[in-house]
Amino acid sequence: MFQYNCEVFYEDTDMGGRVYHPNYFKFIERARSKFIESLNIDQRALLLEEKKFFVVKNITADYQLPAYFGDNLVICTTLVELKKASMVLKQEILREGKKVFDSSVRLALLNSSERPEKFSVDMVREIKKFFKLK
Amino acid sequence: MFQYNCEVFYEDTDMGGRVYHPNYFKFIERARSKFIESLNIDQRALLLEEKKFFVVKNITADYQLPAYFGDNLVICTTLVELKKASMVLKQEILREGKKVFDSSVRLALLNSSERPEKFSVDMVREIKKFFKLK
Amino acid sequence: MFQYNCEVFYEDTDMGGRVYHPNYFKFIERARSKFIESLNIDQRALLLEEKKFFVVKNITADYQLPAYFGDNLVICTTLVELKKASMVLKQEILREGKKVFDSSVRLALLNSSERPEKFSVDMVREIKKFFKLK
Amino acid sequence: MFQYNCEVFYEDTDMGGRVYHPNYFKFIERARSKFIESLNIDQRALLLEEKKFFVVKNITADYQLPAYFGDNLVICTTLVELKKASMVLKQEILREGKKVFDSSVRLALLNSSERPEKFSVDMVREIKKFFKLK
Repeated sequence: MFQYNCEVFYEDTDMGGRVYHPNYFKFIERARSKFIESLNIDQRALLLEEKKFFVVKNITADYQLPAYFGDNLVICTTLVELKKASMVLKQEILREGKKVFDSSVRLALLNSSERPEKFSVDMVREIKKFFKLK
Repeated sequence: MFQYNCEVFYEDTDMGGRVYHPNYFKFIERARSKFIESLNIDQRALLLEEKKFFVVKNITADYQLPAYFGDNLVICTTLVELKKASMVLKQEILREGKKVFDSSVRLALLNSSERPEKFSVDMVREIKKFFKLK
Repeated sequence: MFQYNCEVFYEDTDMGGRVYHPNYFKFIERARSKFIESLNIDQRALLLEEKKFFVVKNITADYQLPAYFGDNLVICTTLVELKKASMVLKQEILREGKKVFDSSVRLALLNSSERPEKFSVDMVREIKKFFKLK
Repeated sequence: MFQYNCEVFYEDTDMGGRVYHPNYFKFIERARSKFIESLNIDQRALLLEEKKFFVVKNITADYQLPAYFGDNLVICTTLVELKKASMVLKQEILREGKKVFDSSVRLALLNSSERPEKFSVDMVREIKKFFKLK
């Protein structure tokens, strides 16, 4: 499980006094970026040098509790499925141990012609190592 | 079917050269706001005077084609389910007739104690009238 | 004077109940994009084919009245200064004839090595024609 | 001087490959929120219980160097002017010791009728203490 912490700022709120609902997708995207970085993958170099980048293919999300300005959120990311050119991550957001948000995100890697690209052997090895898969 | 058009600006893009994936949720939220307005519901008055507001309970979304700066997008919203205190909308984004994004969004109405609030008789009548339901 | 209209949505507000202050810079950036488009410049093609893009060098802004969800805003853009590789635009936001926001923005054009690039003869001619300069 | 660190994520970038220019205002706003928190002011309680909130009255900003995905930014905030109901902060963003962005922001406090509100004696004392003013 990969853990990432973030805090709610003014920019994240809306006039309902809560976090504006699409902003949770920013929080979990930050967590994925730090997860990918932890695998020794430099996303910016990947994009600039190899023209490869990750894209979200689909998302399901449940909003369970509101989050507010000043909240300290913990994003917990686990692997659900690892395929040759995509993976599914489960990403939950917790506040003081209570679940605020639950989601499932399918990520794919695209190449310079914007076509699906198989994950490299290195990438697969790092992902498996991180999640302790065989 | 409620139709709303929007255009992709610099603010919507990311370094991958496409629309940043959470921003599609902003586009469909704009469409819902205009849909709600078309039902003669003033969301700001509802919030300030009655402390009631709509929240997203869950979302599923498929990213089918990328969208780019300058694209003119059409958001098509239809009703999937109407319950006493929530409804499910199907919201698709098209560009030149091709589907870019497909989603399903459950909306609920909350009251001043942030509890689910039944839709008013007027609101239900307007929703049914718009979608030509009995 | 180039005029562009936009509307305030949920995404633009914050928990203070108003438009979140950096979002005015998105509104005026939309207006500049439509202004540049009106000069027959395709910003996306310019970026992808010539690796040239406009950047903001500096901004001054005064927040004069709050803007709220549902407001219809009018952005009025005029030219203050036109130099070889930069220009200054005055951009005001009005609501029902009252000034909400006032700003001055210096824009420069950068080339593929991220260095200042002189505006093309065509671009200068279009800008002068639009603002009726000699 | 109040120091706050933040990192650039995908959400902050645009198709130019850099940080989208209004997003710097989000970064410095986060720094101000943490600064205000460090003065023992709970902005959310202030808003909900006393209907008071800080607003930006004006901004000047210079963009000196681009910032990119993955950059670790340091925001340095100093006090320029302290008046009865407003203050001016200088906020610089640095990356590896080099200045990326420079700004000056006038903040005011508003009350429940959205009129300027004098800073409380406690608030003034905390601000002066932090910046070692007499």
